[in-house]
Amino acid sequence: MVHYFSSNFKLGILGGGQLGKMLLYETRKFDISTVVLDPSPQAPAKLAANTFREGDLMDYNTVLALGREVDLLTFEIEAVNVEALKQLEKEGKKVYPSYQTLEKIQDKAVQKQFFEDHGIPTSPFKIFSTKKEFEAAVEKGDISLPIVWKSATGGYDGRGVSILKSQDQLKELPEGKCIAENLVPFKNELAVIVARSPKGEVKSYPVVEMEFHPTANQVEYVLCPARIDDEVAAKARKLAEKVSQAFEHVGLLAVEMFQTKDDEILINEVAPRPHNSGHYSIEASYTNQFEQHLRAILDLPLGETKSKTGAIMVNLAGEEGHTGPVTYKNIEEIMKLPGVTPHVYGKKETRPFRKMGHVTIIHEDLAKAREIAGRVKESIKVISE
Amino acid sequence: MVHYFSSNFKLGILGGGQLGKMLLYETRKFDISTVVLDPSPQAPAKLAANTFREGDLMDYNTVLALGREVDLLTFEIEAVNVEALKQLEKEGKKVYPSYQTLEKIQDKAVQKQFFEDHGIPTSPFKIFSTKKEFEAAVEKGDISLPIVWKSATGGYDGRGVSILKSQDQLKELPEGKCIAENLVPFKNELAVIVARSPKGEVKSYPVVEMEFHPTANQVEYVLCPARIDDEVAAKARKLAEKVSQAFEHVGLLAVEMFQTKDDEILINEVAPRPHNSGHYSIEASYTNQFEQHLRAILDLPLGETKSKTGAIMVNLAGEEGHTGPVTYKNIEEIMKLPGVTPHVYGKKETRPFRKMGHVTIIHEDLAKAREIAGRVKESIKVISE
Repeated sequence: MVHYFSSNFKLGILGGGQLGKMLLYETRKFDISTVVLDPSPQAPAKLAANTFREGDLMDYNTVLALGREVDLLTFEIEAVNVEALKQLEKEGKKVYPSYQTLEKIQDKAVQKQFFEDHGIPTSPFKIFSTKKEFEAAVEKGDISLPIVWKSATGGYDGRGVSILKSQDQLKELPEGKCIAENLVPFKNELAVIVARSPKGEVKSYPVVEMEFHPTANQVEYVLCPARIDDEVAAKARKLAEKVSQAFEHVGLLAVEMFQTKDDEILINEVAPRPHNSGHYSIEASYTNQFEQHLRAILDLPLGETKSKTGAIMVNLAGEEGHTGPVTYKNIEEIMKLPGVTPHVYGKKETRPFRKMGHVTIIHEDLAKAREIAGRVKESIKVISE
Repeated sequence: MVHYFSSNFKLGILGGGQLGKMLLYETRKFDISTVVLDPSPQAPAKLAANTFREGDLMDYNTVLALGREVDLLTFEIEAVNVEALKQLEKEGKKVYPSYQTLEKIQDKAVQKQFFEDHGIPTSPFKIFSTKKEFEAAVEKGDISLPIVWKSATGGYDGRGVSILKSQDQLKELPEGKCIAENLVPFKNELAVIVARSPKGEVKSYPVVEMEFHPTANQVEYVLCPARIDDEVAAKARKLAEKVSQAFEHVGLLAVEMFQTKDDEILINEVAPRPHNSGHYSIEASYTNQFEQHLRAILDLPLGETKSKTGAIMVNLAGEEGHTGPVTYKNIEEIMKLPGVTPHVYGKKETRPFRKMGHVTIIHEDLAKAREIAGRVKESIKVISE
């Protein structure tokens, strides 16, 4: 029998950002002692950690030392020193998710290849070791435009991705290993969060749908459940579970995917942690994604993943033209609407497009939630006055 | 416009117990800065507070100093120095709930008289300034047994209450001011939580029902919604709102009541804070009671109070015969059941009947939730090994 609860067990968390902060709420609920490592002394998760250490997540010795101090190590961000995780696992330390997943995910070319090798449908692609090779392929016509160019490493939140429509754009691309992916015409961008525990229990959440702005190419709403056929939803969940199994992943895996015009599901990419597309679960799910991640890495029984209500999540990003001390304009207006909960991340300064929080809208009727979400989106502005 | 969010606003909280801890989760969600005062250096709420101060909640100067340091003061326990709150209000400080509610509640005789003066139905009662007066009334036959004896002050969690069946029991009663209350034969013990903001907005939660052990006189389950007629429920909520208005209360007020054999509602007593009977709201309500308390005292719009699912709460109390380092026996067994969330309070030592946590069981079908709750109750034991 495991004695996590109110015992001397210590959980280490690499990264003290917003995801770490929300994960820490759940450690409080279970009274699990934590040590958090983050480079910033203003890390949002600093407050609810039993112990907070300032340090570089990419530094081998810093990560190694933290890992040796705890009973179990996890992370809330992929940009951590994988070699240190590898060494810790070698020393018999539990590290969930494993460095092996991280290794396959940090390099998007390796990730794409992994999907192909495991019979996981993904859009057709070619890998290039250098920018030069990629340019040559375009110039020779081996690759026909338009094409999706992706940097193999370092991409995050849409950075490191371009849709290349003409050869003129080539000069704007950075150096380095990259992938060329066929442009897939898709109906929907979907995501499924899968939890898997060391003993191999697997549970997936309902499919969520990203709704884009009608003209700007930007996700505006994350809706749960996705407004798609039950058959397509079942296929998407099954496939996401297959991906989790293929990685022999432990913890949460957020699986982003495309629904093509002819209802094929293609895996886009994965994130081995709680994910923006699962924030709705705090209000709407029987078990929220953060509690589920804890249950998974602690090898506790996984919780029920179904929803209590329909839910929509709206990200709160800094408005363009505003840099400085943050104000959440009209936050009181949106709090008047039924089922609306703002989550303020506690960053003191706003910058254009900086993720400053999110708002969840719940309603038993998803269409009604969508209507309220529209009003939320129109009202609240993250600005600096 | 108010700028609580991510600003320099400081909320003071008297008491850092389990209620304070759950309240602090919500301050994190809104990024509200907190200063918590508690006599214990092991206070459960210590971790999530921005600043923690060790100190006596009954000491005038300690409470005064804390109040002067913050912008708004609230409490999670009634046993605080009321004179200090009074002085702070005089100095123009916002103190919610007001000392005026606390003054009327701390003395149960004053509380009963308040109900009577405001036309709030409550069981018939008589007040006695001393034990001697009470004894004389019993001996003279002015009071006929059986009768409920209540200490006017200091009672908590059933302490300070006795059902007096014979004169022999008189000698066991402590000295001091007391109340004799008629024994009301009731069908159900109910509770309603009401939120009220400074601007006078009022919202009540659905009626909850306490289900007692069939033989032992002990609450085993708190069920929401109560299994009562809609009409009775509407009457109970209306009455609870009237009580909140009568106190001109700001913040949460938990109103405990009896449903008599002929469906009358009698107010038993009130608590001016988040309450055990509202713990179910964390999982089941559109707005949980802790977020609602914050919304109320900050004069923000109150949140929707309806439930997303049926819910049952089971308290985790220390087993008899067990004192020492705590173990939650079979906690993993109950976590296998759908919709079951344990809340471990983080007290390191268990004692017989000590409140060590609670478990929430949610299900869209309350009868099904009740069935699962029965299995939870049978399995989990708070012991020391």
